[in-house]
Amino acid sequence: MSAINYPLHTLRAVVFDVDGVLSPSVVPMDANGVPMRMANLKDGYAIKTAVQQGLIVAIISGADTEAVRLRFQKVGVRDIFLAVRSKIEVLDSWMADNGLQPNEVAFCGDDIPDIEAMRHVGLAVAPSDAAHEAREAAQYVTRATGGYGVARELLEQILRAQDRWPKTANAYG
Amino acid sequence: MSAINYPLHTLRAVVFDVDGVLSPSVVPMDANGVPMRMANLKDGYAIKTAVQQGLIVAIISGADTEAVRLRFQKVGVRDIFLAVRSKIEVLDSWMADNGLQPNEVAFCGDDIPDIEAMRHVGLAVAPSDAAHEAREAAQYVTRATGGYGVARELLEQILRAQDRWPKTANAYG
Amino acid sequence: MSAINYPLHTLRAVVFDVDGVLSPSVVPMDANGVPMRMANLKDGYAIKTAVQQGLIVAIISGADTEAVRLRFQKVGVRDIFLAVRSKIEVLDSWMADNGLQPNEVAFCGDDIPDIEAMRHVGLAVAPSDAAHEAREAAQYVTRATGGYGVARELLEQILRAQDRWPKTANAYG
Amino acid sequence: MSAINYPLHTLRAVVFDVDGVLSPSVVPMDANGVPMRMANLKDGYAIKTAVQQGLIVAIISGADTEAVRLRFQKVGVRDIFLAVRSKIEVLDSWMADNGLQPNEVAFCGDDIPDIEAMRHVGLAVAPSDAAHEAREAAQYVTRATGGYGVARELLEQILRAQDRWPKTANAYG
Repeated sequence: MSAINYPLHTLRAVVFDVDGVLSPSVVPMDANGVPMRMANLKDGYAIKTAVQQGLIVAIISGADTEAVRLRFQKVGVRDIFLAVRSKIEVLDSWMADNGLQPNEVAFCGDDIPDIEAMRHVGLAVAPSDAAHEAREAAQYVTRATGGYGVARELLEQILRAQDRWPKTANAYG
Repeated sequence: MSAINYPLHTLRAVVFDVDGVLSPSVVPMDANGVPMRMANLKDGYAIKTAVQQGLIVAIISGADTEAVRLRFQKVGVRDIFLAVRSKIEVLDSWMADNGLQPNEVAFCGDDIPDIEAMRHVGLAVAPSDAAHEAREAAQYVTRATGGYGVARELLEQILRAQDRWPKTANAYG
Repeated sequence: MSAINYPLHTLRAVVFDVDGVLSPSVVPMDANGVPMRMANLKDGYAIKTAVQQGLIVAIISGADTEAVRLRFQKVGVRDIFLAVRSKIEVLDSWMADNGLQPNEVAFCGDDIPDIEAMRHVGLAVAPSDAAHEAREAAQYVTRATGGYGVARELLEQILRAQDRWPKTANAYG
Repeated sequence: MSAINYPLHTLRAVVFDVDGVLSPSVVPMDANGVPMRMANLKDGYAIKTAVQQGLIVAIISGADTEAVRLRFQKVGVRDIFLAVRSKIEVLDSWMADNGLQPNEVAFCGDDIPDIEAMRHVGLAVAPSDAAHEAREAAQYVTRATGGYGVARELLEQILRAQDRWPKTANAYG
């Protein structure tokens, strides 16, 4: 049913890196040389739906711009850790705070600084244009490239496996 | 003559969603994390032409930025509904206000929140990179991806079927 | 030698449209809904070189932003007509003012409002993603899509035919 | 082991052009018509790593925006020459100041103004979408196009050859 070889019904939380995952690796810079992350509106719908359906969605990123916080707060992400230097430390303590076991968590990352975190959870996911090291560390490589639908592709499959994705045929048919 | 299996001469109005339809699904964010929608200049020409030729063009979108309103006012769109939460409600009351029957209206959407509206009109259209649920709800899937010529492709075919698209051979030959 | 079936040595002037030619058809919008045109740095080098080599380069565009004027002034374009409503009128009077015959001029456009101007000159050029009407009106369709190297591709061929393109083998070998 | 036919262990310094190399050739313009260069976050990781591992990384560019300086200072580039008119002069004097021999230096450029500098060093590199003159002057043409991973592709191969690229299997396995 799903392309992901993992018992998706066990997942209670999904953690995303930003650069190369929720936003492409290549983005414009503002006048101060700060990368301006991009928004994916279809990812936004999936994140909002996932949160409404009770999935815990978090962001752990080295990015340090208020724009990222404001955007993802708006689509319902509760825990947003920015300017993170050690992702594994933040992830580990956040999982403890939320009583999450590794097999209940997915982590989606695209580069070498994500790999420890990816190895710490049950389901490691990487975009198709992730660094080869991140792809090798992933159980599931999305068809989407970073920023272009990674969250949508992952969350739809998780929510479908949990019977929580919107049923358009029933709802609107 | 047209690739669209619908009696295009009956159409009096075309309604567009913005994100993933008139603007791509992936766009830069401003400093406040607000998605900066993109403009397609060739779509702009087609919309301006359609309005001049008497077609009613409207926008119903969840987007809530003044930039969208200002851009599409400039190309002649009269009715622009932004920050919409229920598209079907807005569409239904707008059609009533304008005396439009379902078979006289096309709706172009790309994601699950558009599907009810798509099912409410005669011709439902989706971009080629729309969510699969939206593509399934569409009678016509454009060759163009969202933001990259959807409006041009749709409006040119409608206006040609109505003999109202500019005849460059005659006008300039 | 060149892919363009035209006596390129007769050309004294090249006129460019902006949207869909020097800048892509799809661009971000600023907070006021004004399309933010894009710059192509390799086109910039070719334009600068063409001007230094004595070719007249002009811009005739419906675009009306100061950014376009400032960018192309910087790369040496002398005559920049923006917010133009009738391109053929501006082109015709500009050619008269500069004593230019049709066979001495190339015009590069991508959409229906460019076609009259394209038919008024010796060499009409269209990007590969131009509106089909513009491609049909062109003697030469570039390999490049609009904004992604159209000016470079055209100017290099013209200057090579006129033996005025930089000879890197000689200059630096 | 590497796709680059050059003794990479001899390299002590890598010099990058910006436009078409670290940033794509096509970028948005700000309100003053100044090209807004783009950032590649995966390149950023590689540059930071290279600098930490003792490789000298420099930038020599005709670009003249503070954004470029601030971005690349942040990822650790020490010597950033902007608004450069003669790249070969700046490169030559910088190499002398740093006691660098040609065979110890790589230069990555994409257009005709880079070619003299490319011929002045041991390893000349060009992106796959560089001007054909730059590709012909290069010993190595990257798979990546300009802005989309050129620095990552080059620096990873150099650092691997020098046994200084992060070993994720050991470090995190």
